[in-house]
Amino acid sequence: MNEVAVIGVGMTRFGKDPNSTVRAMSEAAVRDALADAAVEPENVQAAFFSNAIAGLITGQEMIRGQAALRNTGVLGVPMFNVENACASGSSAFHLACMAVSSGMYDVVLAVGAEKMTHEDKTRSFGAIGTAMDLEQLAEQQVASHQGRSPFMDLYAQRALDYMERTGATVSTFADVAVKNHAHGVHNPHAQYRLRVTREEVLSSREIVPPLRLLMCSPIGDGAAAAVVCSRRFIERRRSEKPVWVRASVVLSGRDRQPEEPTVIERAAAAAYEIAGLGPEDLDVAELHDAAAPAELITYEDLRLCEAGEGPRLLASGHTALGGRLPVNPSGGLLSKGHPIGATGLAQIAELVWQLRGEADRRQVDGALVALAQNTGGFLGSDSAVTSIHILAA
Amino acid sequence: MNEVAVIGVGMTRFGKDPNSTVRAMSEAAVRDALADAAVEPENVQAAFFSNAIAGLITGQEMIRGQAALRNTGVLGVPMFNVENACASGSSAFHLACMAVSSGMYDVVLAVGAEKMTHEDKTRSFGAIGTAMDLEQLAEQQVASHQGRSPFMDLYAQRALDYMERTGATVSTFADVAVKNHAHGVHNPHAQYRLRVTREEVLSSREIVPPLRLLMCSPIGDGAAAAVVCSRRFIERRRSEKPVWVRASVVLSGRDRQPEEPTVIERAAAAAYEIAGLGPEDLDVAELHDAAAPAELITYEDLRLCEAGEGPRLLASGHTALGGRLPVNPSGGLLSKGHPIGATGLAQIAELVWQLRGEADRRQVDGALVALAQNTGGFLGSDSAVTSIHILAA
Repeated sequence: MNEVAVIGVGMTRFGKDPNSTVRAMSEAAVRDALADAAVEPENVQAAFFSNAIAGLITGQEMIRGQAALRNTGVLGVPMFNVENACASGSSAFHLACMAVSSGMYDVVLAVGAEKMTHEDKTRSFGAIGTAMDLEQLAEQQVASHQGRSPFMDLYAQRALDYMERTGATVSTFADVAVKNHAHGVHNPHAQYRLRVTREEVLSSREIVPPLRLLMCSPIGDGAAAAVVCSRRFIERRRSEKPVWVRASVVLSGRDRQPEEPTVIERAAAAAYEIAGLGPEDLDVAELHDAAAPAELITYEDLRLCEAGEGPRLLASGHTALGGRLPVNPSGGLLSKGHPIGATGLAQIAELVWQLRGEADRRQVDGALVALAQNTGGFLGSDSAVTSIHILAA
Repeated sequence: MNEVAVIGVGMTRFGKDPNSTVRAMSEAAVRDALADAAVEPENVQAAFFSNAIAGLITGQEMIRGQAALRNTGVLGVPMFNVENACASGSSAFHLACMAVSSGMYDVVLAVGAEKMTHEDKTRSFGAIGTAMDLEQLAEQQVASHQGRSPFMDLYAQRALDYMERTGATVSTFADVAVKNHAHGVHNPHAQYRLRVTREEVLSSREIVPPLRLLMCSPIGDGAAAAVVCSRRFIERRRSEKPVWVRASVVLSGRDRQPEEPTVIERAAAAAYEIAGLGPEDLDVAELHDAAAPAELITYEDLRLCEAGEGPRLLASGHTALGGRLPVNPSGGLLSKGHPIGATGLAQIAELVWQLRGEADRRQVDGALVALAQNTGGFLGSDSAVTSIHILAA
């Protein structure tokens, strides 16, 4: 396996923009990523495009990447449209890394974009629900939900289980939102840049108990891109500040017994082994806080703390900016936003900036090793897919 | 780049089956491919799943592979959902080859499945139309079509251009259908197994002049799968009859001037170079005859004959079973059927059987080198994607 590095990233500001299109957002992210990499469109040898719900929102299916990138100058190369629910973006990134590590390509582009806003909000929520196994839901006679993402019902159940197991309270979840919103204030790409208090989170609209609105990632639009390349290309171009991909793991979930590891635990174990690193080596992490309790559960799945110690780790301040291992310095999905197909690549963009020391007021001092965790879909008793990427300066 | 081989294939009989589901068809194709490879589900280290229109037909998006394969025993491994219009199946196959050639995996599964039949036929045709750039179509104020695939309008235009350039007549196109249907009679997996005459083709319902119904591939349901592995795995398992992947190329299309090569010409040239082979080395080919004229145009793009000589090559009988280079011994898309996400993998299955000498009454004697061409979507003045695979016994 050949070494792989990221030499350029770009992303749009996430948010609700009725006039945005998948194509225009993709063009902006690609332009920024190529400029950051000092690479011309004609240097790109292959592209992976991730999108999750355009077919159900805009009607475009099948050649989403070709349609989105048609004016970027990269058309003509091998191009693949990749879908993996909320982990679509990191799946595209993983395949771009695989394409380089195979030795077939030296410069590969990964682009993720999502247009989620629709004048009919139930259509956005309905589209999100297609990240579950519809046949299985029908068999289990699970009702379809109106007016909210069906994921929030599942996150609410996990939150209740977590409260029972660890003694976490609703305030603990509120504190995750307070921390990540405080980080997002410093991120010009974030959908929300407002400091919130625990009281504001707890008094925001109830979605599904125990979840409140400010504990849930918002609907939004956005795009992100990364340029991945080989060591050979870096040496030839004398690229500055490459960020090395030390581990790239994507695993699918499966029905599991309670005592069996989750897909996140399995993916993390595999990534630590590949990188030859452990949780104690991490300096910064971007985690998939689609709902606030997920961040705490993931602390434990990644072995950032012992089982049941998530609330204590949060309360210690170690995972806030200024702490030992800041988590979601970008603001996370809660504050930065979660345009599905772009999310995984936006995590990579944030970590590349952190490892280069370019994250301005949200910079984690001296960050050398970073981890991104991106999770998507539900299937039986686990998530349908999880990726773990470990990057190093 | 490591060597890659196919050691097992499987497919369902293609056809219109109101009771079929993407999951049940996928399970059948995977079961047959794993049995053919003598590989257990737990040996599979990664999977690529291709599907084009399930989101618009069944509602399932985002985790189509996980949902389709949940009972096959392969869940838990890296799994990617791949879309590339009518070339989705060969794109999944290409990525499976790339995964093995990267050295990361020894045994990878590629599965393609499509459920196209819907009680409301306009929904099937509407879904097919999403393989074009919808924004571009809207800009060009192209009307949406009712009661037929919008692709047939584009194929009709290409047919008219081809007639003008080469002197082909409507009867020439009819003869492609006659040939491929005569082949399909011998294929137990074909949607149609009926011999047709030139007169029957010419008197079948007019779709768009000069195309008649029997010159157009049908709507259908089906699945196909292939098990791809490394030389290391073959040597360890002493697998019999591996079929080697000598070239695997997927390229996206782009707007082009008339004198510039088509995406099929570019992909073929790249594949011949990688394989170190030329058109004169081929013994059998499966080509993307979504409409009859496409087979003739592709003869020329693949350099099976000189420009303008497609009608003469067909009339010579060289591309019929018993000829020098039989094309579409399976019956092609015209007779075997074209369930979008499965098509590219069904081509691979047919060629693997041919190269092993297992194609029964449609066997091409002594076939050692085979080529598959799978093309999808439209974008500006060219197809949106084309793959070329060259396989050898």
